Amino acid sequence: MKVLHHPNRDEIELTSVLYALSDPIRLHIISQIRSEGESPCNAFQVPIAKSTLSHHLRTLRESGVVFTRSHGTQRLITVREEDLNERFPGILDAILRAYDATASDWTETVESVDSEPASDTEQEA
Amino acid sequence: MKVLHHPNRDEIELTSVLYALSDPIRLHIISQIRSEGESPCNAFQVPIAKSTLSHHLRTLRESGVVFTRSHGTQRLITVREEDLNERFPGILDAILRAYDATASDWTETVESVDSEPASDTEQEA
Repeated sequence: MKVLHHPNRDEIELTSVLYALSDPIRLHIISQIRSEGESPCNAFQVPIAKSTLSHHLRTLRESGVVFTRSHGTQRLITVREEDLNERFPGILDAILRAYDATASDWTETVESVDSEPASDTEQEA
Repeated sequence: MKVLHHPNRDEIELTSVLYALSDPIRLHIISQIRSEGESPCNAFQVPIAKSTLSHHLRTLRESGVVFTRSHGTQRLITVREEDLNERFPGILDAILRAYDATASDWTETVESVDSEPASDTEQEA
């Protein structure tokens, strides 16, 4: 059985964690695991293809946000709360508090992220 | 003079803020403004092309992380701390605390982000 790579605690990068959490599907998954505990891949009620879910879970694992273990034919996912809280104190709590407070319906969030910003030619510098 | 678009406080999206802060150059800029106050574009000591800096500043502005105002021929940038703290309490502080604690030399962070992860064909789901 293939061993999945997980970064060690001290290899977890702040920018990778923030990128992993900058997607509404991935935030939904993390929020669900936090409330329900270790979860199999098929527990996530998200309207996306299995291959897309696989990609999201891989992004979360490779950034150090989740730990994935094999159990029989299943993959079981947990949030690496202890590692994240030790490495970046307060970040996971603050982000999930904000997510739970603002995402009353996560599908709305998905739609707003998918919409294109207004086109313009502004220059900053 | 072109008026730059800024999202209203209640239009600021969590995922957009996290994405804007998931880049070491942009984190460096935010950290510098927080410590030095409102800053002109040419104050940021970053080894990138002006057009690239412009792109980063635009990402920060459009996500709601910074406010950009024109003053003569200059653009002056501030962090929208009050808006961010009201909308997503604790997030900015937690992220910048983690950044300041781990990024002793931000160029190292840039290099680690630029490096390619090991290629593999792992499947999550």
